[in-house]
Amino acid sequence: MSSTMDTTAADLESVLAAADAARRPLARTSPADRADALDAVAQALEDARADLVALAAAETHLPDARLNGELTRTVFQARLFAQGLRDGSLVPATVEHADPDWGMGPRPDIRRTVVPIGPVLVFAASNFPFAFSVFGGDSASAFAAGCPVVVKAHPGHPGLSRATAALVVEALEGVGYPVGAFALIEGVEASISALKDRRVKASGFTGSLHGGRALFDIASGRPDPIPFYGELGSVNPVVVTPAAWAERGADIVTGWVGSLTLGAGQFCTNPGVVLVPDAEAFTAAVDLPAPGPMLNPGIVEGFGKSTAALREQPGVRVAAQGPASAEGVAAQVLTTTAADVLADPEALLAEAFGPAGLVVQYSSPEELEQVLDVLPGQLTGSVQAAGGDDELAREVALLLAENVGRVVWNEWPTGVTVSAAQQHGGPWPATTAPTTTSVGLAAIERWQRPVAFQGVPAAALPEQLRD
Amino acid sequence: MSSTMDTTAADLESVLAAADAARRPLARTSPADRADALDAVAQALEDARADLVALAAAETHLPDARLNGELTRTVFQARLFAQGLRDGSLVPATVEHADPDWGMGPRPDIRRTVVPIGPVLVFAASNFPFAFSVFGGDSASAFAAGCPVVVKAHPGHPGLSRATAALVVEALEGVGYPVGAFALIEGVEASISALKDRRVKASGFTGSLHGGRALFDIASGRPDPIPFYGELGSVNPVVVTPAAWAERGADIVTGWVGSLTLGAGQFCTNPGVVLVPDAEAFTAAVDLPAPGPMLNPGIVEGFGKSTAALREQPGVRVAAQGPASAEGVAAQVLTTTAADVLADPEALLAEAFGPAGLVVQYSSPEELEQVLDVLPGQLTGSVQAAGGDDELAREVALLLAENVGRVVWNEWPTGVTVSAAQQHGGPWPATTAPTTTSVGLAAIERWQRPVAFQGVPAAALPEQLRD
Repeated sequence: MSSTMDTTAADLESVLAAADAARRPLARTSPADRADALDAVAQALEDARADLVALAAAETHLPDARLNGELTRTVFQARLFAQGLRDGSLVPATVEHADPDWGMGPRPDIRRTVVPIGPVLVFAASNFPFAFSVFGGDSASAFAAGCPVVVKAHPGHPGLSRATAALVVEALEGVGYPVGAFALIEGVEASISALKDRRVKASGFTGSLHGGRALFDIASGRPDPIPFYGELGSVNPVVVTPAAWAERGADIVTGWVGSLTLGAGQFCTNPGVVLVPDAEAFTAAVDLPAPGPMLNPGIVEGFGKSTAALREQPGVRVAAQGPASAEGVAAQVLTTTAADVLADPEALLAEAFGPAGLVVQYSSPEELEQVLDVLPGQLTGSVQAAGGDDELAREVALLLAENVGRVVWNEWPTGVTVSAAQQHGGPWPATTAPTTTSVGLAAIERWQRPVAFQGVPAAALPEQLRD
Repeated sequence: MSSTMDTTAADLESVLAAADAARRPLARTSPADRADALDAVAQALEDARADLVALAAAETHLPDARLNGELTRTVFQARLFAQGLRDGSLVPATVEHADPDWGMGPRPDIRRTVVPIGPVLVFAASNFPFAFSVFGGDSASAFAAGCPVVVKAHPGHPGLSRATAALVVEALEGVGYPVGAFALIEGVEASISALKDRRVKASGFTGSLHGGRALFDIASGRPDPIPFYGELGSVNPVVVTPAAWAERGADIVTGWVGSLTLGAGQFCTNPGVVLVPDAEAFTAAVDLPAPGPMLNPGIVEGFGKSTAALREQPGVRVAAQGPASAEGVAAQVLTTTAADVLADPEALLAEAFGPAGLVVQYSSPEELEQVLDVLPGQLTGSVQAAGGDDELAREVALLLAENVGRVVWNEWPTGVTVSAAQQHGGPWPATTAPTTTSVGLAAIERWQRPVAFQGVPAAALPEQLRD
């Protein structure tokens, strides 16, 4: 079905022309206007909750409770951006009056704020049909910044994407936003044409390393390169210290399995690697459930391939396998040693998207630190600690902070709160843009460009810069 | 001389190994430690002022007054970063306690700050032998962030670069910084090898569009792409409104010529294009001085080529030419119409680095706005306004803000203050990274990566995140 709905070149031209035409009116909205728009869309999604969740359930096979929670998060997120625009916390302003005594010579009156970067192209993800899709974090933050948004629908939930898009369009019309402020496109070809188009000024993506890299290369290779914010996934390592293992090993295994198999392991913060002092005892305690249905056949196939590749690595063996689901997917736990990981970190620490985990035995704190030292960039890194290992746990947290976006202590990385302090990002290959986040209020910064105003009279200044 | 000093592959390996080894100790310095290091280097440069200025004058042909001012700026800049580290304004911290009533579900304790991105490769510029060179804005901001710095010397001032580097190394040793916190390399080959090296995590550059693009492509094309912050130049358009022209046309011409020919026009904020209501009267009032000596023969040659290319564009003619300097360089003013610019904006609005300006006649506010609408990205855009044109001037400022990093009102763009509100950046082709600045305190953000800490006890938190 979805292929017959691919956006044609002519339709794409209309979409991009409209987005370009909406650029200036949107740049001239006030923060309050943008807050109203976000709230209107949030309310429209909330009002259509039952229909949207039913559509999502049919297309993604995710359970209703999960989808309802995700929609709640999505609505909350839009309203949080609206609130930040209204209370000024998302409206930066640095005001410096002229200073004849400034240390390098007289300083003019200079004031700094941000302007929207321009039309944004968002690539929707498959695994969060609300929170990282048509009106997910990328779209909401780009709207908050004042940018027109063009979303490339994920083919895994085309009906939901169209229904959501229709609600967004209607809600924005209701607050007087111009046609072109938002559009949905479908199909790989149209999205690549859009990514190459001069009128598109930035892009956001959540998905695979392979796909994200290809799109990053297109964005960076343009005659006029644009920022490409790709969130490409992660194995989200968890370190269990000896003291934590001794104190509550069984609880840690249960907690890890729960986080690992949650939603059939289809989370970018899935803790796919756990470093433990006693892998044999750890894996012996593992009890794997049958996974729920996966999002689509492509993900089933990818999971099979990536776990097969892991199993073929030297030193890796299967330690536990759970019952197969109706579609033949079984959760599995592999095991290896820190020495084997050190021999080929990239291969052994590669992501297998789905309910599979690698238990890595370390033989000493030094060996543990060696593994953390070669860790590729990660969205999250966790430590399970207990009294007695305080110094080791602190050192693990410090080492994790060098290579991850979020350090988690005695909790599990799945479940990403949306707030001002959140950071969902990390060094390559976790993302293409290590200084940014795709979740939380700071996500707005990706779509804004700082501008300084020098000697500009009050009447010509953005309101937030006036005295 | 400089080619015989090119860094060898073996020396580069030592430099990069040392920078990598310094990464962790630097990441664990406190903001106060980093402030001490910046102050120590600043003081060392100040103490060596006479020698450094003499070296710079011999190699760059810039006058002593200019070089002294630039060194003052450079020292001030380092101390300003130090001050921001000490007073906390450059140490971001967002602290959110656990909140069971958070709107999307219970929120954990989560706290956000930044960590250094890792070793930074800085490409020094020719035109600011202090402020954008060995210990210029890129180096100072990267040190403030806690990153090791490797500087690729500009071949235009090799002796000064080596002398400055020796002072930096000595000052950093004096505050206990590890070997590897700073190094100077020379030669294109070594710098490209460094840019491709996995241990280098970000790079800053100030220079030409051509050179910057080539380096951006290398950084983006790595197996592990890294941020590349290139400041590539600009024509810095100035708009003169009809009322301003009527009120003080002669002063505006004098001011423009002064800004255009300052330092032989060798500034990235040089106002190379001015849009005026009466080009004939404007150019008739132009009185061009003989330029001082240019930085080096390559720049003389480039100026000749780029001005020749401009003169060959349809509709462009020479309106004024000043007396030639000893090296045969003459300031020149070309003129054309808005209609001709609209026919080929990229060709007519191309930068000619040096004392050359293009006077563009607009026939109506609508035509002026059309030109501003097709403006390529710029570091700055200025408006010369007067009462009577308030509405037009406001609109011009709004349009400029869409495509420039700094909007200047009734002042000239040359002379870039270093402060918290400064923004020195802009959309492509002004820079490769439109959301960042290379001057001012916000320049530090390029070298920092946000990290969130979830549920982490006080003893394991960075100090700025503790209650």
